[in-house]
Amino acid sequence: MKNKERPIGIFDSGLGGLTVFRELRALLPGENLIYFGDTARVPYGTKSAEAVIAFSKEITGYLLAKKIKLLIVACNTASSLALGAVRKISPVPVLGVIEPGAAAALKAVPRGGRVLVTGTTATVNSRAYSRALAGSGVRVTEKACPLFVPLAEEGWCSKPVAAAVAKEYLGPYRGKADALILGCTHYPLLKKVIARAIGPRTAIVDSAKAAALAARDGLAAAGLLSGATAGRSEFVVSDAPEKFSCLASRLLGIRTGKVKVKRF
Amino acid sequence: MKNKERPIGIFDSGLGGLTVFRELRALLPGENLIYFGDTARVPYGTKSAEAVIAFSKEITGYLLAKKIKLLIVACNTASSLALGAVRKISPVPVLGVIEPGAAAALKAVPRGGRVLVTGTTATVNSRAYSRALAGSGVRVTEKACPLFVPLAEEGWCSKPVAAAVAKEYLGPYRGKADALILGCTHYPLLKKVIARAIGPRTAIVDSAKAAALAARDGLAAAGLLSGATAGRSEFVVSDAPEKFSCLASRLLGIRTGKVKVKRF
Repeated sequence: MKNKERPIGIFDSGLGGLTVFRELRALLPGENLIYFGDTARVPYGTKSAEAVIAFSKEITGYLLAKKIKLLIVACNTASSLALGAVRKISPVPVLGVIEPGAAAALKAVPRGGRVLVTGTTATVNSRAYSRALAGSGVRVTEKACPLFVPLAEEGWCSKPVAAAVAKEYLGPYRGKADALILGCTHYPLLKKVIARAIGPRTAIVDSAKAAALAARDGLAAAGLLSGATAGRSEFVVSDAPEKFSCLASRLLGIRTGKVKVKRF
Repeated sequence: MKNKERPIGIFDSGLGGLTVFRELRALLPGENLIYFGDTARVPYGTKSAEAVIAFSKEITGYLLAKKIKLLIVACNTASSLALGAVRKISPVPVLGVIEPGAAAALKAVPRGGRVLVTGTTATVNSRAYSRALAGSGVRVTEKACPLFVPLAEEGWCSKPVAAAVAKEYLGPYRGKADALILGCTHYPLLKKVIARAIGPRTAIVDSAKAAALAARDGLAAAGLLSGATAGRSEFVVSDAPEKFSCLASRLLGIRTGKVKVKRF
């Protein structure tokens, strides 16, 4: 297999990384993509760094064996806690979602402006976005929103309850931020209620979209973009493949075809 | 170690089984109790039967090595899906929470009455409560309420959002059931908002309390109640022991002391 034709590996704790997959598929229709969702151990955002690192290394080993040319950690929690550990064991480039998301936020915010980072408890506790934005002259506040993931997984993205939860988390920040980072790959599914809760003067920064753009730019710079016109998509999960397939279709409009199972 | 002085093993996917632990500790102050929470893989309620059975068997092996005299599966999802598999490998009696909960509901409901079972998606899909209540002359409806667990784990049990979620799930059944079974060991933490959403004519049946009573009766019948006056409590989790300890105290008023970690 030529280097250019090798697949891109993408992983997440479950379904959320499909928002990155979707952006990537739209940007790079010729690439072969392998997506892994760790549905047996989802969610990561409430678990310890030690556990998230161990899970991420196992998945990385699995994807490396598929001869990938690039690994995208399409999970903010794993990007926050395990990126260094994954890079240590990977001979191919590893891209997380934190740095692209932080860079996209800086473009949306004036110097001295205020950025609100939303994410899981683990991502917020890691302060990875604060570190990525340090020295850039913006003020950063981080807010954990742990109910957003189960709300999205329930498919309740446009129910009144979703608006109530968003108001509970974001009400105190309404009108006070120049940009809000969707610092969890599930959150783009709730973008509308989040935007409504934070108010019209705040730009919404989608780290999933930013990561997909960074992946394209990185591959182009390395001369590794595929020359094909229609790439294959492969989906692998650690549990409940039918449910994954059903939610991918219902929440994201992605038709997975048969989803494979790899248990650890 | 004499048979009577052996500990009782209790396990759950995480924190919820502590509602069973709390009832048991109050009923049987002299017993030694070992609680295992599978916090690395929580929640179980959204996962496959195959995964829940594999996890339950691993934990059972761990607790059996502690020379327990009784094993309580203090998780409705694991009781629904894995009780048979656990009983096959256990030389000591195994008690789930479904049968005690179903028996308690029958006491609260007239013949021909209606029982509403609330639980996780996995518990409801298993129809374990419907099977346990079959032939008893009551009408059974089951309703999955997957957001209740993350709401409880967030400590939002008395926030307006909890009431909104309860209304979303239970509004259609308001005033229509004679009893509602709290078919998940997390749900007693949300008992107040659940009772308000379902309305005053519905009795709330707590399967955690029913399981603790069944454990006491079973041990008494077998002559295995401890003669001691003050038993020890031991807590073991598969991830994030400090968080477990903190939530046990905040949500349930249980002081765990040092929590051990056992990773699988």
